[in-house]
Amino acid sequence: MITQISPLGSMDLLSQIEVDMLKRSASSELYQLYRNCSLATLNAGSKTDNTKQLLDRFLSFEINVISKERGVKLELVDPPQSAFVDGKIIRSIQANLFAVLRDILFVNSQIASVKGLLTTELFNEHSTFYITNLVFSILRNANALHVGEDPNMVVCWGGHSVNETEYYYARQVGMQLGLRELNICTGCGPGIMEAPMKGAAVGHAQQRYKDSRFVGLTEPSIIAAEPPNALVNELIIMPDIEKRLEAFVRMAHGIVIFPGGPGTAEELLYILGILLDPANKAQALPLVLTGPKECSDYFQAIDSFIHNTLGEQASKLYQIVIDDPKEVARIMKNGIKQVKAARLSSGDAYGFNWTLKINKDLQHPFFPSHENMAKLNLHKDQPIEQLAADLRRAFSGIVAGNVKELGMQEIEKHGPFKLQGDALIMQQLDQLLRRFVDQDRMKLPGGSAYKPCYEICYDK
Amino acid sequence: MITQISPLGSMDLLSQIEVDMLKRSASSELYQLYRNCSLATLNAGSKTDNTKQLLDRFLSFEINVISKERGVKLELVDPPQSAFVDGKIIRSIQANLFAVLRDILFVNSQIASVKGLLTTELFNEHSTFYITNLVFSILRNANALHVGEDPNMVVCWGGHSVNETEYYYARQVGMQLGLRELNICTGCGPGIMEAPMKGAAVGHAQQRYKDSRFVGLTEPSIIAAEPPNALVNELIIMPDIEKRLEAFVRMAHGIVIFPGGPGTAEELLYILGILLDPANKAQALPLVLTGPKECSDYFQAIDSFIHNTLGEQASKLYQIVIDDPKEVARIMKNGIKQVKAARLSSGDAYGFNWTLKINKDLQHPFFPSHENMAKLNLHKDQPIEQLAADLRRAFSGIVAGNVKELGMQEIEKHGPFKLQGDALIMQQLDQLLRRFVDQDRMKLPGGSAYKPCYEICYDK
Amino acid sequence: MITQISPLGSMDLLSQIEVDMLKRSASSELYQLYRNCSLATLNAGSKTDNTKQLLDRFLSFEINVISKERGVKLELVDPPQSAFVDGKIIRSIQANLFAVLRDILFVNSQIASVKGLLTTELFNEHSTFYITNLVFSILRNANALHVGEDPNMVVCWGGHSVNETEYYYARQVGMQLGLRELNICTGCGPGIMEAPMKGAAVGHAQQRYKDSRFVGLTEPSIIAAEPPNALVNELIIMPDIEKRLEAFVRMAHGIVIFPGGPGTAEELLYILGILLDPANKAQALPLVLTGPKECSDYFQAIDSFIHNTLGEQASKLYQIVIDDPKEVARIMKNGIKQVKAARLSSGDAYGFNWTLKINKDLQHPFFPSHENMAKLNLHKDQPIEQLAADLRRAFSGIVAGNVKELGMQEIEKHGPFKLQGDALIMQQLDQLLRRFVDQDRMKLPGGSAYKPCYEICYDK
Amino acid sequence: MITQISPLGSMDLLSQIEVDMLKRSASSELYQLYRNCSLATLNAGSKTDNTKQLLDRFLSFEINVISKERGVKLELVDPPQSAFVDGKIIRSIQANLFAVLRDILFVNSQIASVKGLLTTELFNEHSTFYITNLVFSILRNANALHVGEDPNMVVCWGGHSVNETEYYYARQVGMQLGLRELNICTGCGPGIMEAPMKGAAVGHAQQRYKDSRFVGLTEPSIIAAEPPNALVNELIIMPDIEKRLEAFVRMAHGIVIFPGGPGTAEELLYILGILLDPANKAQALPLVLTGPKECSDYFQAIDSFIHNTLGEQASKLYQIVIDDPKEVARIMKNGIKQVKAARLSSGDAYGFNWTLKINKDLQHPFFPSHENMAKLNLHKDQPIEQLAADLRRAFSGIVAGNVKELGMQEIEKHGPFKLQGDALIMQQLDQLLRRFVDQDRMKLPGGSAYKPCYEICYDK
Repeated sequence: MITQISPLGSMDLLSQIEVDMLKRSASSELYQLYRNCSLATLNAGSKTDNTKQLLDRFLSFEINVISKERGVKLELVDPPQSAFVDGKIIRSIQANLFAVLRDILFVNSQIASVKGLLTTELFNEHSTFYITNLVFSILRNANALHVGEDPNMVVCWGGHSVNETEYYYARQVGMQLGLRELNICTGCGPGIMEAPMKGAAVGHAQQRYKDSRFVGLTEPSIIAAEPPNALVNELIIMPDIEKRLEAFVRMAHGIVIFPGGPGTAEELLYILGILLDPANKAQALPLVLTGPKECSDYFQAIDSFIHNTLGEQASKLYQIVIDDPKEVARIMKNGIKQVKAARLSSGDAYGFNWTLKINKDLQHPFFPSHENMAKLNLHKDQPIEQLAADLRRAFSGIVAGNVKELGMQEIEKHGPFKLQGDALIMQQLDQLLRRFVDQDRMKLPGGSAYKPCYEICYDK
Repeated sequence: MITQISPLGSMDLLSQIEVDMLKRSASSELYQLYRNCSLATLNAGSKTDNTKQLLDRFLSFEINVISKERGVKLELVDPPQSAFVDGKIIRSIQANLFAVLRDILFVNSQIASVKGLLTTELFNEHSTFYITNLVFSILRNANALHVGEDPNMVVCWGGHSVNETEYYYARQVGMQLGLRELNICTGCGPGIMEAPMKGAAVGHAQQRYKDSRFVGLTEPSIIAAEPPNALVNELIIMPDIEKRLEAFVRMAHGIVIFPGGPGTAEELLYILGILLDPANKAQALPLVLTGPKECSDYFQAIDSFIHNTLGEQASKLYQIVIDDPKEVARIMKNGIKQVKAARLSSGDAYGFNWTLKINKDLQHPFFPSHENMAKLNLHKDQPIEQLAADLRRAFSGIVAGNVKELGMQEIEKHGPFKLQGDALIMQQLDQLLRRFVDQDRMKLPGGSAYKPCYEICYDK
Repeated sequence: MITQISPLGSMDLLSQIEVDMLKRSASSELYQLYRNCSLATLNAGSKTDNTKQLLDRFLSFEINVISKERGVKLELVDPPQSAFVDGKIIRSIQANLFAVLRDILFVNSQIASVKGLLTTELFNEHSTFYITNLVFSILRNANALHVGEDPNMVVCWGGHSVNETEYYYARQVGMQLGLRELNICTGCGPGIMEAPMKGAAVGHAQQRYKDSRFVGLTEPSIIAAEPPNALVNELIIMPDIEKRLEAFVRMAHGIVIFPGGPGTAEELLYILGILLDPANKAQALPLVLTGPKECSDYFQAIDSFIHNTLGEQASKLYQIVIDDPKEVARIMKNGIKQVKAARLSSGDAYGFNWTLKINKDLQHPFFPSHENMAKLNLHKDQPIEQLAADLRRAFSGIVAGNVKELGMQEIEKHGPFKLQGDALIMQQLDQLLRRFVDQDRMKLPGGSAYKPCYEICYDK
Repeated sequence: MITQISPLGSMDLLSQIEVDMLKRSASSELYQLYRNCSLATLNAGSKTDNTKQLLDRFLSFEINVISKERGVKLELVDPPQSAFVDGKIIRSIQANLFAVLRDILFVNSQIASVKGLLTTELFNEHSTFYITNLVFSILRNANALHVGEDPNMVVCWGGHSVNETEYYYARQVGMQLGLRELNICTGCGPGIMEAPMKGAAVGHAQQRYKDSRFVGLTEPSIIAAEPPNALVNELIIMPDIEKRLEAFVRMAHGIVIFPGGPGTAEELLYILGILLDPANKAQALPLVLTGPKECSDYFQAIDSFIHNTLGEQASKLYQIVIDDPKEVARIMKNGIKQVKAARLSSGDAYGFNWTLKINKDLQHPFFPSHENMAKLNLHKDQPIEQLAADLRRAFSGIVAGNVKELGMQEIEKHGPFKLQGDALIMQQLDQLLRRFVDQDRMKLPGGSAYKPCYEICYDK
């Protein structure tokens, strides 16, 4: 089956030069990436979280950029039928498909056109500045920055595969946020990324709130495993995990963290690493860790880990709320009032937090080789924001060793990562990781018994 | 606790005379009715379906109409806290509260002001005409008739208490209707009245359809037992069941009937009674009976009953679709295209079906006394639309005998109703009712074993 | 030529009963009035101000109300071609045509349906109250009362036929009002009724103000002589001059009076009569008399007349501004801020000034017979608001004697009206009227030399 | 006086990098140009057409780009007070001020950032393609290309200083275009550039058409002499006259040419040069020359000149309409229907005519030196589109010799231009120019008697 799809929502007006660039990109090495992201998008709402399965089921799928004088169209060959209703593509999928075109091909061709610039010394010196501007440009190009809209964006993080109790709880929190006319931004897939949107949709309906924003921030390497859920009405694909995290925190007016595994710990350490930076002392950003009462142990473990490694200064940056969706929403609502006041006084935009300082350590990718993991500085005698950054890298490495292809290969070749540091810190780390194992939060593909990919070593 | 609520959505501009009338009405015998309907509305989304329980829980609740030069306000004394978020009333509840004011007090005071007219001979002679105009006026006054909107309203009927499978199925049907940008009108409470709205909300979101209409048509005697669910965004309270049914069929561009008990059979016979009238031969109105595969027996029973009593002419007016939500939605979508064509050619409005003829028999209330039940003409030798009307009355009586207070008192005093007629018809009736009993669809308050409130008698 | 016209802007949804009433009205004695008003409306923007001429040119014109199930349509026979562009009616004329239907036929049929009520004793006793409610109902029915809109309506009064300097000046004032985002309400015809709207339209365009309201308030006996100018986008036809004046002052948030003749003096005395009433002491209503420098004499004459008859209390109710459009607009803008504050503190609506007291004397029609004119109480020894009311009647009579058919017949039969009163007042009156004559403001049809229709008599 | 102005309509969201570029540009050589264009814009609606006078009156005026984290602001020092109402800037002027920022500074800094590209060989080879893309980008950046809007843009050309009859006539044409819901695009200043907008505004108001577009296309060297009139609601500043002409013809769905001098002849020859190109055979573009009856001679002269030099093929590309505004509007309305059909069949966009071929000759600037003028090929033995292009250059040179500083200096130094060619063509040219002189259309600054800046030479 072959269908042609017209633009919706963006990419309406392109110059001939831009259409030419797109067509060239489409026949480049980028194509496979672009095709797979498009396929994932067409598969929105499907339950599978197995990328390979998805790709195998639609081997004959192709997507072609058709250039017309009136603009671009997309030609789909053998697309998943679930994206269509009586032969017409579902409008949110249609829009998301052009979001993929925009963020994969268009942004890439734009970046390519200034590539010269990006390799200069000048760039290296000011890379933080340029990366932040790039994140801004991608979000603006996606119309995700609304001028004149009051702060109302709550970012929700949490484990990607959750049980029913946790899912239901996250929906309740979403409903309470929605009743307070707050919008939701998540990582765009199913589970915890869908539940708060579902709840907020009902809350918005009850308040007759028409401007619901359900922003899904994803990245190419993840979109297939976690295709956008049916409620996402703004899909944005950031180039990599670091820029995605930066987009989250610069757009957020508040952050809610639901239960998860080491990945969630990584996210928490990322935001703590930022907020602990003395340059960010004046920042307002409500941060809540929450879950149903079954999770109180889990959060207690996290809390004492943070408290014992990074100290009270870190642990007072967040609140833990157990089993109280209304309280979570109230904290967000009130905290966001302070965000507004802070932005007003600093003259910063509501839509994008320019003044937040994100350190190079957090902005640049970390490759979890055995060498890099061993070199992590897990000692107390350093600024705590740097300790937070290296702890984040430790968890990042563990996530990779557990589930990411490259990381798993490393482990297979060279055995477990060695993490070394202060006795106190290492003890805490050990304890927390054991709890994750006990609570079955070290999810492995396949579901076999967990064999740690790390070794805890104590300084002599 | 005392709160003042401002108008939302209607009742914004009142003349001093109208405000005076409202205040007078509010202190009249109507007050109790008005107060209870308001309480039910404030209780929207609550799970109880026990009117008495609800009323008992909020004994101190009061609602007062406050007249200001700038318009009316409502003063609430001790309202249910679930209607408020951080001290502010939920906007859909606020709007619904003024819908109650509008439909109970305002409509009544308007009707009272022309009461003289309504008792004249002229009126009696043309009562059908006047009742239809009254139904129109109430709907127009509620802004429920949209000029220039294409036909898109699907009325969903079905049992009020359903099991999880049936609920889930109805939500799936709603989702497929929503994906086709159709709106939903139901009896406004929970269960089958909520499920299709919930599904359609998600379908609409996927299609980025912003004009979702979830119309709840209710009546004073039922609203407390079935408070408007959280999704209803247009609440309309019709004076009684006959006007409510008329509102349903004049607003409907298609009707879907989900499984239910004798009440649902009554509704089916009501619409068949109308469509069988030769005056309505040119009417287009897609009519589907549907349910999950567990219900196929149930629908087969209904179908053979209709076929054997009213004949093929009746049974070809509807389609039965088992376990296929997409097919239901497709039939509606296509049928509604024909509705549009028919309205265009007859010059009738899209929002209100003026040309549909509704016979006096169906428009006037039926009181199920033993005498009236015994007098029902259940014979073949009459126009089938009249047979349909009397069969509808038979089911109406059975519903009353089963669950309505007045009907149950009659049964207690005088024993079961006697229904008499042609052997063939009576046999069919007997069979169908037995099936309802077997399938546990003769729901009784309390849930005790069913003791029939009727006796089937055969002509000699 | 025969054309059918569909509703625009109102009258979209009618019940069958209402359509029937309309058709009946249309064949009644009302028809001629309705036809003529419709013809005047179709002739919008035409330059003639001669009613008879207009009617004579379109003798074969007919307008018929066509009842369709989908609503009403209008059938036009031989309408003026200037109302059409390439065969399609101009949209503002189409809307105005249905405004005529609404205000002449529909309002009349509604009034008729409660006629019983209007003749009761109860009504007589409370007539002020009922008349105000009727004015409100007509305006609400015309959607002229906007909830939630800040006060911004400037009523402009003045002579109907003005010279080019005065026209240009009024346009400048309109432009300055428009630049301050104020809307305009006038008597709806050409001349002073058009100029401020034209200016305001340009001012609005420069401010990108999209909600321009150009309200034309007229009455059946005048619409043909002064057909709505091309800019009127809300046409409202009040039943008679008194209700029209009441509509003006209850909708006004400020009043600007341009030069004119005895008719303009009548309007000024009307509003002074209201504002002098002690019950209206707390009312805020900016009132400015203004004109180009050529008019300074004229305004000085008016001012000393008011000052010498009604005293300083009256003359401090208005400001006179000569040749300074910006100053006029600034006074209005600032005055309207006080109007808003006053309404907020009294709880009154912005759209309709309920709290303004209008005395029976001013609310009821005055028939200028010789007897009534002679009986006017033009003496100082009475409350000044009553003196203002009787002075207003004196001018009303002079206007009638000058140009209205009935008045002119009276004069022809019985000679000039005799006006009698205190020497001081009569002197002032004499002086002012002489000035009007000298300044050529006693416009007569045909333009012959002025022969006074009144005689000034002094008390002995 | 110093004021700060916030963005309106564009430039709302800038990255830090873009703000930095803007600030850098603002302190560059561009500044003077930017300042002067801003001053002209602030002076909108002023009557002077003397650039120098304007600049002299506001010597102390300064404009500074202020960078804030929330975006840019403009700081104005000693701006013309006519741009303010009670201390607040008029909103259309505010928007236009940011249009100047956008088109002068922002577009320039964007172009600068790819300057490398623009000097390559590749560029030269494909310059036509790149210039067209640049024109597109500037228009898109100005939000002037509306997706999904039906063709409705009428470009009006004509003399910049016209008499009252011609002004009034152009306003009538504008009114008739407006009544047909067509929008207007002109060169943005007073006179013929204002009159059709003024008329169309009234026409739109009568049709309740809310999306009025009054596009002013100007260029830096002209904006001060012809500041945007008060009605322009989309101001776009193209880099030079050639790109401005290209923007006109690619945006136009129809062109109306009012009377003018040699400049208007130049514009006519420009569009004829395009339409005569065989590559443009399938193009639809209604083209009307029109004026009041006093102009019939003028148009007859033009017509016979075209007919005798370029032949019937050229003269059948336009229609001449004398004294009939309705007919002009009807031709446009019907012609635009064909434009829509043509675009649909070619797949071209409505907002921008990509398929129109504009030859290098017409796209590149022509410098009117004596040498270049003498070299013009004014002979019949060549493709007529090339003859048209060279005739256009001849008129361009005459305009320069008459009124442009550089041209006038050339004439002073070297005497009149020598134009040489076929006897027939030269005769026609001579005749036409004489007529222009006779009709006083060779407007000179100061108004002294005309002394030709050219000499007609015949081939031997």
